[in-house]
This record gives sequence, C-alpha cells and structure tokens, in this order.
Amino acid sequence: MFYKFFQSVDKYLSFPEAKAHCDIPCGIYDPAPAQIAALTVVRMMDLMTALEQGEEKGRLEYHNTLTRYIAVKEEHAEKAKHEIRVIWGDYIKDTHLEKHPDLTMLVHQIMQLGSNCKQTINREHGLAFVDAINQFAEIFWLTKNVKTKKAKAPYAPGLEMFYPDL
Amino acid sequence: MFYKFFQSVDKYLSFPEAKAHCDIPCGIYDPAPAQIAALTVVRMMDLMTALEQGEEKGRLEYHNTLTRYIAVKEEHAEKAKHEIRVIWGDYIKDTHLEKHPDLTMLVHQIMQLGSNCKQTINREHGLAFVDAINQFAEIFWLTKNVKTKKAKAPYAPGLEMFYPDL
Amino acid sequence: MFYKFFQSVDKYLSFPEAKAHCDIPCGIYDPAPAQIAALTVVRMMDLMTALEQGEEKGRLEYHNTLTRYIAVKEEHAEKAKHEIRVIWGDYIKDTHLEKHPDLTMLVHQIMQLGSNCKQTINREHGLAFVDAINQFAEIFWLTKNVKTKKAKAPYAPGLEMFYPDL
Amino acid sequence: MFYKFFQSVDKYLSFPEAKAHCDIPCGIYDPAPAQIAALTVVRMMDLMTALEQGEEKGRLEYHNTLTRYIAVKEEHAEKAKHEIRVIWGDYIKDTHLEKHPDLTMLVHQIMQLGSNCKQTINREHGLAFVDAINQFAEIFWLTKNVKTKKAKAPYAPGLEMFYPDL
Amino acid sequence: MFYKFFQSVDKYLSFPEAKAHCDIPCGIYDPAPAQIAALTVVRMMDLMTALEQGEEKGRLEYHNTLTRYIAVKEEHAEKAKHEIRVIWGDYIKDTHLEKHPDLTMLVHQIMQLGSNCKQTINREHGLAFVDAINQFAEIFWLTKNVKTKKAKAPYAPGLEMFYPDL
Amino acid sequence: MFYKFFQSVDKYLSFPEAKAHCDIPCGIYDPAPAQIAALTVVRMMDLMTALEQGEEKGRLEYHNTLTRYIAVKEEHAEKAKHEIRVIWGDYIKDTHLEKHPDLTMLVHQIMQLGSNCKQTINREHGLAFVDAINQFAEIFWLTKNVKTKKAKAPYAPGLEMFYPDL
Repeated sequence: MFYKFFQSVDKYLSFPEAKAHCDIPCGIYDPAPAQIAALTVVRMMDLMTALEQGEEKGRLEYHNTLTRYIAVKEEHAEKAKHEIRVIWGDYIKDTHLEKHPDLTMLVHQIMQLGSNCKQTINREHGLAFVDAINQFAEIFWLTKNVKTKKAKAPYAPGLEMFYPDL
Repeated sequence: MFYKFFQSVDKYLSFPEAKAHCDIPCGIYDPAPAQIAALTVVRMMDLMTALEQGEEKGRLEYHNTLTRYIAVKEEHAEKAKHEIRVIWGDYIKDTHLEKHPDLTMLVHQIMQLGSNCKQTINREHGLAFVDAINQFAEIFWLTKNVKTKKAKAPYAPGLEMFYPDL
Repeated sequence: MFYKFFQSVDKYLSFPEAKAHCDIPCGIYDPAPAQIAALTVVRMMDLMTALEQGEEKGRLEYHNTLTRYIAVKEEHAEKAKHEIRVIWGDYIKDTHLEKHPDLTMLVHQIMQLGSNCKQTINREHGLAFVDAINQFAEIFWLTKNVKTKKAKAPYAPGLEMFYPDL
Repeated sequence: MFYKFFQSVDKYLSFPEAKAHCDIPCGIYDPAPAQIAALTVVRMMDLMTALEQGEEKGRLEYHNTLTRYIAVKEEHAEKAKHEIRVIWGDYIKDTHLEKHPDLTMLVHQIMQLGSNCKQTINREHGLAFVDAINQFAEIFWLTKNVKTKKAKAPYAPGLEMFYPDL
Repeated sequence: MFYKFFQSVDKYLSFPEAKAHCDIPCGIYDPAPAQIAALTVVRMMDLMTALEQGEEKGRLEYHNTLTRYIAVKEEHAEKAKHEIRVIWGDYIKDTHLEKHPDLTMLVHQIMQLGSNCKQTINREHGLAFVDAINQFAEIFWLTKNVKTKKAKAPYAPGLEMFYPDL
Repeated sequence: MFYKFFQSVDKYLSFPEAKAHCDIPCGIYDPAPAQIAALTVVRMMDLMTALEQGEEKGRLEYHNTLTRYIAVKEEHAEKAKHEIRVIWGDYIKDTHLEKHPDLTMLVHQIMQLGSNCKQTINREHGLAFVDAINQFAEIFWLTKNVKTKKAKAPYAPGLEMFYPDL
C-alpha cells in the first residue's frame, strides 16, 4: 500500500479556492492534442509506405524525405505519450480510478503501443495506438460529464475518433 | 514583388505524388492546439486575478503560485503564436491568400495580441487573442470545406469557440 | 480489458535479436536521474525557506533568486515525473506488473506527489516524493536482480537513497 | 479589417517608459541569427552533395553522416523561420507595414522557402531562402535607420549577405 | 596528460575530405549569437532597474514584467554559455590552444561570469560577461584570419562590440 | 591573464549565506547523468553494429531503426558534453583548477571526443569518451572528499565506471 495518506487533490492549474467536493472542472485538460499526435503517427507510416512504393528518386532526396517522416513519427508518438501521462498523472484522481479500474492499465498499454509505433512502421500498431487513445478520451470526457460522439477526423488518415459532442 | 517564381506547393508532410490540383487535404493541420493554448492564456489571467483577491497566503506560496501562472501564460501565448505561424506559413498558399486577402493581416494581429497577452494580465487582450484565433480557425476550416459551428469550450473559461462540425 | 493482444516486448533500445526469454538487461534504464531530480526539489524548498529567513536583500535581488529557485523546482519535479514515466512505460512489462501489483499505483502517486511539489513549497511533499521514487528505484533494481543498499546522498539535502550495490 | 483597435505598441522587451513616438530602438532584434541559420541550410546541402560524390564509406558511416546533415538542415531552416516570425510578429508594427507593403508577403515567402529547404536538397531553394532573408534584413535595418552593406559571409558557403554597416 | 592520442580533427560540419593541413575554415561558427545573448543580459538588468525606479504599477503587472525579465536574462546567459562552449569545444583545436594559451581560462571565466549574471542583477557582472565574450570573439576571428573592428551595437545597451570587418 | 578579478564564488544553487571559505558542498552536482549518457553512446554504436550484422529486414524498418539509433547517439553525446560543461563551468573554481591543473584540458578532450562520437560509429571513440568522463568523475568526487570505487555498470555495455563509494 503506497501513500494512501497523500490523496490531497492535485491542484495544478485549479482555482485556489477549489473545494474537495468541487464538481466543476477547473483545469484545461483536453485529449485532442494526443489524438492529433496519434493520427500523425499513422499518417507518417502511410507516407513511408507510399514513398517506398512511389517512383524512384535520387538517394539523397529519398533519405531526406524518409528521415523527416521517421523524425515526425517519433516526435508525435512521444508527444502523445506525454500528453496522456499529463492527463492521467495530473487530472485523474483516485476517485476516478475507483470508477474506471482499467484506466491505469490502459495508460500502460498506451505507453507500450507508443513504443511499438516508434520502433516499427507497422500500421496495426498505429491503429491500436489511436484506438487506445480514443478509449482514453472517451473515459476522460465521461469523468467530466461531457457527451462524446464518433466522427471521422477531417484529415488523412481520416480515422474514426472520439470527440466531445459540444 | 517578391519571389513570384517560388510558388511551388509547400509539400511538407504531403503525399509525394500530390498534384497541383489535389483537392484532398494531405497534411495534418488543426487549429485546435492554438485554440486550447489561447484559452489557457485567459484562464491564467483569471487565476492570477483570483489569487490576488483570495485570502492571504505566505509570501513564498504566493510567489510560487504566481510565477507558475505567469510561466504557463507565457508558454501558451508563445505556443499559440507558433501554431498559427506553422499553419499560415506551411499550409496557406497564395491561392488561399487571394480568396482571403485579410488573412495575413489577421495573422500579424495574432502575433501582436500574443505579445500583449505576454506583457500584461489584461483580460481584454486575452479575449481578443482567443477571438482572432477563432477567426483564423473559421477561415482555415473554410479552405478545407469543413463546416464549423460555435460552441462553448468544455472547460474554464468556457468561451465560445469555432469547432469543425464533424 | 485492454489490448491484451499487444503484449509484445517493448524493444526500445534493445538488441534486435533479443529473445522473449532474454535475461540480460538490454536497455539502459536507470532511476538515478529521477532520484537526483527529486532531491533537487527538496533542495530548492530548503533554499527558499533559507532565503525567506535570511537577511533582507533588495527587492530585485530577492525576486531574481526566488524565481530561479521556483523554476528549478518546477523543472526538476517535471523531470522526475518524466523519467519515471519512461521507465514504467517503456521498460516495465505486464510480467513485472504481475509480480509487483502495486507498482502502477505507486507511479500514479509519484505523478500526484510531483504535482504537489510543483504547487507548494511544503517539504513534506518533497520528502514523500523522494520516498516514493526511492521505492520505485528499489523495485526497479529488483526486477533486474541488482542488489540495492541505502546510503545518504553525497550532497544536500543528504537524504537516504536507494542505490544499486555494485 | 481585423483588430484595428489593437494597435498599441508591442512593448516586449522595450523600456516601460517608451512613448508612442519613441524613435529609439528599444528591443534587441537582429536578423543575424536567421541569416546564419539560412547559410547553414545551404552549407548542409553542399555537404550532402559532397558526401554523395565522395569516395564510398561503410553504410553505417554514410547514414550517420547523412542523417546528421539532414537534421542540421531541418533544425536551421526551422530556426530561420522562427527568428523571422519573431521579428515580424513582435517588432514590425502597422506603421512599418504601411511603408513596406510587400514585407508581409516576403515573410510568407520565407516560410514557404523554408519548407522547400526542409523538403529537398535543392540548392536553388537554399539560395532563394538566403536571398529572401537578406531582403528582410535590409528592410529591417532600414526601419532602424541603420545603413547596410553587402559582404561575403566569412565562412562557407561564403554567400553575399546584408550586414549593418557599423 | 590526457588523451594526447585523440588529437584527430573535430570534423563536425566540416567537409568530409578536409585534410589535416586544411587552412580553409569549413564549419559555420560565429560568436555573434553569443554576443547578442550577452547584450540581452545587460539589457534585462537595465530594464529591471528601470522597472524598479519607474512609477508604481499593480502588483500582478509588476511581477508579470519582472518575472519575464528574469526569465529572459536567465535564458540568454545560458545561451551565451552554450554557444561559447560549442565554439571552444567543437572548433578550437590543440593547435589553437598552443597559440592562445589563455583561451581556455577565458572560457572558464565566461562560464563563471554567466553564472554571476544569472544570480544577480549586478550590471558590472553583465559588462564583464560582454567584455569576456568580446575577447573570445576577437581571438576566434584571429584564428580565421578575419580582421575585426570595434563598433557600437545598433541597439540598447549599445555597448562596444568586436565585429568581423567584412 | 583574464579576469583574475572575477573570482567570486559561483553561487548557483548554493546557500545564500555560503562563505568564501565554505567547505560544505552546497549545490547538487553529480556526474552520473553524464556517465549514463556516455554509456548510451557506446550502446548505440553496439546496436548499430548488431543491426548491420543481423538478418536482413525491410528497407523502411532498417532505416527506422538505424535513424533512431543515430538520433539517440547524437542526443546523448550532446547531453554528456552539456553535463560536463555545467559541472566544470559552474562548480569548478580556480582553487580546484590549481590542484588539478590538467582538468580543463580533460574537459576540452571530452568535448572533442563527444564530437568524434557524434561523427562516427567508431567504438574506440565511444570507449575513450566514457573513459575521459570517468576520469572527470573521479576528480569531481575527489574535490568533494567522497571516496570512489570502480564497478561494472549494471546494464549493457557493462563498462567499468567510477562511482562514489557511499
């Protein structure tokens, strides 16, 4: 049993007078940047595959393009992991975890899937990464009593995403 | 007149085989992170005002909290400026500018408003910053033929924002 | 239940030919940077208290020093959180979690304690942060079959730390 | 027309007592870092070409060197874009734009040329990038009533640059 | 005596075919960014003093402005130290050190002066920092056989600087 | 002779009341992160060699993996250089340099070796980098009167390292 005595509310960015029973969301947490980043990972995988199948370019041009795709994929996989860590670590409280006991395991899977996306160009990993982050987004909005809907992202790769239904 | 001869399409992150008449959006550009960042700027101004009006704390606690609000305000004003620069500089082409001749002046105003937000804690500047970025978002989605709607942001300060209507 | 089918080993930085039964640690993971960062957080709290109790300085000098302490505290609390996230998210596998079922809750507490350390100058939070990270370090070295020992850090604040006994 | 009512001077880094009619340059803006960064982009293109034409190395050595050139090219193209954005967005006021109506279009072209430099190893793009940034530098120094001169950069690729004539 | 056997030329950014007797400077090293950064440090000190002596503002405005000055001072002192480290560590070779035996001690003093500038708002430290970096710049250009001149910087604080005489 | 008159103690992170004759180390300096980073450089070299000798993969997978190794090698060589610069520039005083007259030359060699490690995948350079940083660590702990011991790092590449004997 760890640190049960440290269950004071994480007040990062919250109103100083926020009460323990405060139902109003005080911080600005939003899974959208993580979702965009995960889509970008899949997009980069698709661009890499297209590059490989496209007509031959010069070697320097090929490597210039490929290296940039790899770097963007790496950076956005990391960004998605970071964003999820921040929401889970700063916003999610023990009371949330009691209601959503699988949430932490989901976060751990997101971290592992992000690593898989960095290490490979396997689109299955990319899709699973987007999917897991969408599940996280759904639970997140649930904790805030904001309805969600599914809709296609308005840019390639155009995957179905969870968005708040505002 | 500058560099008329360099009107080649910005292909950053686009499909290598993209044609000049390509109607499919290829890059992942989204004004959402800029909008979230601008909301965060207003939120920090509100928290600073609340801190000033709240009950007295110790001097160290006061400065610890205030300095963190200032730093988050600074960082997010800069982030919003950067995100808008990327969309305007990388995605917006001369053909867009012909259809939206005020767009570039809007971008310049966003930069100046972002500076105002950094330099003051004047909520009017914050609201104008959000407003200008919303106008940018509206035009951006227009160039992609994505309908927009107005809705309140699902977190404080709960301002009306332009969102894609997916 | 999430993503049970993605339990492939996180191979980040590992030997490509590493087998599933590989007993040799392949990645370079080390909790030392997180431990140093957590000690720095406590150190900054101590310096802030000393500054407050010390002889009066000019207002500019006071704020210059205080702001720098706050910034270093913030940065190192964040660094510690990041380092723990990397080890937990990239190195720790489901098999580790089965043996150490409390580990993930410990990681969540580290995140919350790190937030507390950012938000306050309460030394109790700093000590609890160091303590939790030490517990994490102990479990980490256990998973690698490296013996640990307790010893005082060779610099202020000189707290007892878990080190590998090499 | 946007935000005409926000024409207050950008006071970032300026003297607090600066008057609206202040003729003294108060901020430290200097296009030199952007110019150095743009030269670095051309230099990297030249090194990549030299690498391709040089004697064969081992594959790992080749990729190690090439990847580093690509990364430096990318980083400096981005740096140049960022520096120009800062001067244009923070220092340049509406009164400057009235005197130099093409300036904003030049800035947009710099952004597009920077993208071209990232996406290719085409030296023509690199030269145009340097040229456009030189034009920006010339206008910038003009707004400050500082005379400029043309001179060769004292390092490869030794292009003609605009420098303040101090 | 350390590592005499590792006196191979640092080829970072240099032409792959550069010979040991190569007299042509191949890399793009320039002390200008370090000089600009050091001037910025003095500028921030001056702005802080002016803020303190100016008319009273609200407490939040005062701290917002002061904290930003402190952050810019810190950042640019660090930037100057970093830039000097890069030139000294990457460009300067043992043969340079033989001709300029005091150079390394100068670099060490620059590091210490940079720390003083971070820790205080003492303008004497700022001036000494600029002075030391100017001395470094003079020696640097000497190693490249580029003549230098003294001239006032074209922006506040308008100190005398060493520039290459192109 | 440079700046002999600036021999005031670097007080970065030290107790404000620290006296010139203070024997107690006040700052948190630790060469461990530099040592871990240098080990990582060697590790990446080993992984690159293993990749080259391993069974053939697809071209995209090969480049994805290789580029990531190169990036990690680059980043950690830079990190090690930065960490050593900080300890040498901020902690080491003239009195230390009098007792350890070769120290500064060692630091210069570390910078050059770090460049060699970035530029090549030559394991000899990596080993020399680790070795030089170990020598630095030994001297550092000596200045703090902390005994050191040699022990194998508890992860690949398992080199002998200097650790404080706590």
